[in-house]
Amino acid sequence: MNHAAGKVWAPVITPFDADLAVDAGRLVAHAQWLTEQGVGLAVFGTNSEANSMSVAEKQALLTALVEASIHGNQLMPGTGLCAIPDTVTLTRHALSCGCAGVLMLPPFYYKGVSDEGLFRYYAEVIERVADERLRIYLYHIPQVTKVPLSLDLIARLRASFPGVIAGIKDSGGDWSHTQALIQRFSSEEFAVYAGSERFLLDTLRAGGAGCISATANVNPAAIVALAGNWQADDADLQQQRLNALRDCFEGYPVIPAMKAATAYYSSSDAWRRVRPPLLELNDEARDELVEQLKTLGFSMQGVEVVNG
Amino acid sequence: MNHAAGKVWAPVITPFDADLAVDAGRLVAHAQWLTEQGVGLAVFGTNSEANSMSVAEKQALLTALVEASIHGNQLMPGTGLCAIPDTVTLTRHALSCGCAGVLMLPPFYYKGVSDEGLFRYYAEVIERVADERLRIYLYHIPQVTKVPLSLDLIARLRASFPGVIAGIKDSGGDWSHTQALIQRFSSEEFAVYAGSERFLLDTLRAGGAGCISATANVNPAAIVALAGNWQADDADLQQQRLNALRDCFEGYPVIPAMKAATAYYSSSDAWRRVRPPLLELNDEARDELVEQLKTLGFSMQGVEVVNG
Repeated sequence: MNHAAGKVWAPVITPFDADLAVDAGRLVAHAQWLTEQGVGLAVFGTNSEANSMSVAEKQALLTALVEASIHGNQLMPGTGLCAIPDTVTLTRHALSCGCAGVLMLPPFYYKGVSDEGLFRYYAEVIERVADERLRIYLYHIPQVTKVPLSLDLIARLRASFPGVIAGIKDSGGDWSHTQALIQRFSSEEFAVYAGSERFLLDTLRAGGAGCISATANVNPAAIVALAGNWQADDADLQQQRLNALRDCFEGYPVIPAMKAATAYYSSSDAWRRVRPPLLELNDEARDELVEQLKTLGFSMQGVEVVNG
Repeated sequence: MNHAAGKVWAPVITPFDADLAVDAGRLVAHAQWLTEQGVGLAVFGTNSEANSMSVAEKQALLTALVEASIHGNQLMPGTGLCAIPDTVTLTRHALSCGCAGVLMLPPFYYKGVSDEGLFRYYAEVIERVADERLRIYLYHIPQVTKVPLSLDLIARLRASFPGVIAGIKDSGGDWSHTQALIQRFSSEEFAVYAGSERFLLDTLRAGGAGCISATANVNPAAIVALAGNWQADDADLQQQRLNALRDCFEGYPVIPAMKAATAYYSSSDAWRRVRPPLLELNDEARDELVEQLKTLGFSMQGVEVVNG
């Protein structure tokens, strides 16, 4: 594969201290646990609260991960922002850290923008970054950005920047759309990732690359197991088990729920904190979620415990 | 009035050079022309392409305006961004420049966020800025942000931060909503601005403060005239004339159209440039727009001509 990318990536949740400052030490510990489970680190995704952090905060966190000996080929940071200068700054920094690729949102402030305008945005970023190591994974999450990436736009970008446009994460939640992306684009040079492990088996069977999923923050080993054994006899059963666990989280706002579970299993209540406008899960909802997870026999085995 | 704010503000369009870098000299010239017409400068609004600029670019531009002897009481920069640290940085800088107030978007990445989450965002910003000079004008533009500011949220913010929450710009385009805001909140201490001069007369008659409108970039004198003479016999006729001019622009994407008109009347084609994902008006559309403006006898009298 041209894309060094693995099959399963976690949009890594971001820990905050009591002043809501980013907690690099706690992030490094969680990232190390995730990589031990075989999951790649799509830091600075939607579930990372990336857009609630400044460019400087994200640069500092990525540097901290690399200094903690996390290898660049396990990192796919989100670098797409509304302002081209910001996107270029973060993308260049990611390349200087040796990252395998970057996950790039479209500019998401203006709505109803044209494919031509989005093409020019990505083209301008690529030309300014001007680095042959650049591998961009497009990030389609229209329910959040309200700025979809059309199939025609993807085709045009691939044709204009072969080798640079290396894949896409489809977080739209619509399997028929992921399927259309795989049928039209999936190849050795273009990785199509589902945005949820709910579609992992379907994605791999259809010829896609894998998934980049929030739940990989808490359930990495089981997701990686299916990705590695998707042709096994019990693959459908494994998928059903992944779905059952994901169902627990989907009854709550996903980011606060991931953080609440991580807080519980790492005995670190600090993990529950989110930055506004998000709200942490309250005690009642946390207890209810944990109860459901226990019913499934779930635990975050071996998760790093950091005091606090 | 507690709010030093005037009645008419322009979300000042931002000029870019051939490399799409911000052109501070051209911005200063346009800003000076606008203030001569009696219009306040709501720099870094939606029409300023503010979210297509980095925090550092906006700080540099605001500093350039102040260094060009534009007085702080004529400045209401937009400072609301998705990340609290960025909003705090820009807001502190605006205060250090002596700005009359700041126009503050809600965080606009996540959708479906709660009033409680939005309240915490604004509260956190206010507590971190920790400056008694702070005057926040809330910025309601739900068709772009997809994050509306509810009347209950506004009431709660006003009650919790009296004197700080100084007003709102309602860019929703729905007069009944602006009317509801005026009826519930308008006072000496809380300014309700319509987001378009189309509602200027209605706003002033209902007891609102005025308007903050894109078209004030090109038609400032006539809008200021109505704001000053809204009780005159010909006020409705003046409003009709403002509407007729605005109609011309609304047939096109508004930002590129404002820039195309400014380019034409200042003989500075450079003004047409926008940053992706926006697209500049093409020659055909520009010619068509100018033709319509000429039919109305419109010109941007005395607009600064900067070569290029």
